[in-house]
Amino acid sequence: MDKIILTGDRPTGKLHVGHYIGSLKRRVELQNSGEFKKIFIMVADAQALTDNMENPEKVRQNIIEVVLDYLACGLDPEKSTIFIQSMVPELTELSFYYMNLVTVSRLQRNPTVKAEIGLRNFENSIPVGFFTYPISQASDITAFKATTVPVGEDQLPMIEQTREIVRKFNSVYGETLVEPEALIPSEEAAKRLPGTDGKAKMSKSLGNCIYLSDDEKTVAAAIKTMYTDPLHIKVSDPGHLEGNTVFTYLEAFSKPEDFEKFLPEYKSLDELKEHYTRGGLGDMKVKKFLANVMEDTLAPIRAKRAEFEKDIPAIYEMLKKNCEIARNEAANTLAEVKAAMRINYFDDVELIRSQAERFSK
Amino acid sequence: MDKIILTGDRPTGKLHVGHYIGSLKRRVELQNSGEFKKIFIMVADAQALTDNMENPEKVRQNIIEVVLDYLACGLDPEKSTIFIQSMVPELTELSFYYMNLVTVSRLQRNPTVKAEIGLRNFENSIPVGFFTYPISQASDITAFKATTVPVGEDQLPMIEQTREIVRKFNSVYGETLVEPEALIPSEEAAKRLPGTDGKAKMSKSLGNCIYLSDDEKTVAAAIKTMYTDPLHIKVSDPGHLEGNTVFTYLEAFSKPEDFEKFLPEYKSLDELKEHYTRGGLGDMKVKKFLANVMEDTLAPIRAKRAEFEKDIPAIYEMLKKNCEIARNEAANTLAEVKAAMRINYFDDVELIRSQAERFSK
Repeated sequence: MDKIILTGDRPTGKLHVGHYIGSLKRRVELQNSGEFKKIFIMVADAQALTDNMENPEKVRQNIIEVVLDYLACGLDPEKSTIFIQSMVPELTELSFYYMNLVTVSRLQRNPTVKAEIGLRNFENSIPVGFFTYPISQASDITAFKATTVPVGEDQLPMIEQTREIVRKFNSVYGETLVEPEALIPSEEAAKRLPGTDGKAKMSKSLGNCIYLSDDEKTVAAAIKTMYTDPLHIKVSDPGHLEGNTVFTYLEAFSKPEDFEKFLPEYKSLDELKEHYTRGGLGDMKVKKFLANVMEDTLAPIRAKRAEFEKDIPAIYEMLKKNCEIARNEAANTLAEVKAAMRINYFDDVELIRSQAERFSK
Repeated sequence: MDKIILTGDRPTGKLHVGHYIGSLKRRVELQNSGEFKKIFIMVADAQALTDNMENPEKVRQNIIEVVLDYLACGLDPEKSTIFIQSMVPELTELSFYYMNLVTVSRLQRNPTVKAEIGLRNFENSIPVGFFTYPISQASDITAFKATTVPVGEDQLPMIEQTREIVRKFNSVYGETLVEPEALIPSEEAAKRLPGTDGKAKMSKSLGNCIYLSDDEKTVAAAIKTMYTDPLHIKVSDPGHLEGNTVFTYLEAFSKPEDFEKFLPEYKSLDELKEHYTRGGLGDMKVKKFLANVMEDTLAPIRAKRAEFEKDIPAIYEMLKKNCEIARNEAANTLAEVKAAMRINYFDDVELIRSQAERFSK
C-alpha cells in the first residue's frame, strides 16, 4: 500500500524552536525521503477554533505565520500539500457521521482529551467541539487515507480513537477506510525542548520561547539569559548538566562539525560536558557557542522566511491551490463513505428501480 | 420579517394517523395559509442515523414512504421545499462550528435529550451524534433562517437550545442568525393520539398503529379491536369516556357534518357521549361510526398516495430539485456565517492586503 502522511499544527501562534526540534525538522526529512506517495500538512484552524471560538482573529492572523514557518523550514508545496482545515468542508461531514460510531463515555475516557481539558481549565464548561475533537481528527486522518501520522507519545490515544472508528466503520459498512499507524519520533527527538527559563513547556504567555522567525539579536539575548545551573556561580565551580537548558539545547541543535567551526578547543559535546561538570568552564562561553550553533540552523530559515514574506499574495495563491487538491482528495473519500453507507440516494439507480417495482405491485 | 417554517420527520417508518393529527394536518393548513414566505420540510435521515447507524437500510427505505405520506396529505412541493437532510452537507458544517458555542454540561442538562436517551435504553453507550443532535437541529433551523418551528411541548428545550446558539453566535460574531420561535399546537391538537390498544404511544413494535397508507380493511380491523372501556360489558352498561380510545379518535377525526352523513340519530359528539355514558349504546355502533369518519379522511389520502406511487422516479426527481433549493439556502447562510466568523480567507482581500503590508515593514 502507498504510504500517505497526514500531520499539521494549530495556528495559534508562530512556530518556535520546540516545534522545529519536535516535529518540523523530521517532517522535512520525511518529505524528502521519497518514501511517501502523498503528504498532507494541515493548518488546523477549525480545530484551533474549538478552544478559541471567541477569538477567531488570533487563528486568522496566525495561519500565514505557520505557513511561512513551514516554507522557511523546507516544506515544499510541490511535495507536500499544505492546506487549511476549514477550507475542506468535507471533513465536517465525515465528522458528523463518525460521531454516530463513538459513544460519549468513550470520549470521556480519552486520556489525551482529559489532559488537554486539564491544561485549559475548562472544568465544567468544555465546549462540545473541543470534547469531540478526537472524532474530528479521525476525519482529518481518514479523509486523506493517511497510513502514517507522525505524533508524540502523548497523542497515541488520538490515533487509537481513529483506528477504532475505522474498524467500526469498515465492519458496519464494508472495507472503506484506511487504518492509520502512528509514527513516533526517535527517543532523542521526542524529548520536548524546554523553555529558555528551564520550564518544561515553551509558551507565549511565559515569554520563554525562541521563535523560528526571531532575529539574531533576539535569539542571542534569549540565550544570554537562558537557565543553566543555579549552583554554578563561579567559573571554577563544578557545573551540573541535568535540567541545564543550554546543554539540552546543545544536544538538540549541535552537530559534530560545529566544534571545529565555532569552538575548536573541544572535539565534541562530550568533551565540553566533561569540562563543565569538572569546573572551570563558564556559562557565558557555552552560551556563546550555543548562539553560534543555533544561528547556523536558524539563519537560513530566517533568510528563507524573509524571501517568502515578500510575496504574501503568492502564498495565499499557493494555499488556495493546495486546498483544492486537499478538497478533491477528501471529496473522493467522502463519496466512498456515503456510497458505503448508501446515503447517495440520487446516484443509486437500483434503489429507485427497486422501490418503483415494490410500489407497482 | 418574513416568516419561514422549518419542520420535518425522521424517516424510520411510514407515517401514521398520530403523525397526521399531531402535525401533518396542521402543517398542510400552515402551508396553505399564505402566511409563510418559505416552508422547508426536512426528511431527517441524518438525524435518524444517529440512533440507527447500524441499520441505514431502514432509513433509506423509509424516506420514500415519508415523502409519499407528505404528498398524499397535501404537502405541495411547489409551496413547501421537501428535502432530505443528508443531501444538504452545509448543515454538518454549521453543526461543526456551533459545537464550539455549547458546553458538554449544557447538552447533558437538555430535558428532551435526557428523555430520549431514557426511551432508547442507551445507558452508558449514547452515540456522540445522538448526544449532540440538539446542535444539529440548531443547524437545520438556522440554515433556513426559520422564524417558526412547529413542535410539541416536549420539544421546547430543543428550540431553546437553538435560541441560545443564535444569541451566542450573534453576540460573538455580530448579527447573523435568526432566532426562531416555537409554534405550539392548540391544546386539542397537542394531545397525542394513543395507539389502538390504548397505550400512550403508537409504535411499530407494539403493532398498535394505523398508518396513513393502510387499506380500508386494515383500518376497519384495527378499529374493530380498538381499546374502549373494559367495564362496558353489556350494551346497557354505562360506558366511560376517559381512556376510551374510540372516543379519543372521534374527538380527533370527527367533524360536525359526519353525524348527518353517517349517524343521523345523533346531532353531535356530545350527544353520542351522553348516550354512551348513560348506557344503552354499544361499542360496535360507535366503532362503525369511527370507521366511517376515519375513512372519510383517509380515503382521499390513500387515493392520492396511490397516484404518487405510480411514478417513483418522478418523486426522486422532485426531491432532487428540492434538495438543490434547500442546499442553496443553506449555502447562503453558511457563507454569511463564515464571513461573520471571518474564516473566508481566500475571499478576504483586506486580510491578504494587510498581512502583505505588515510583512513589508
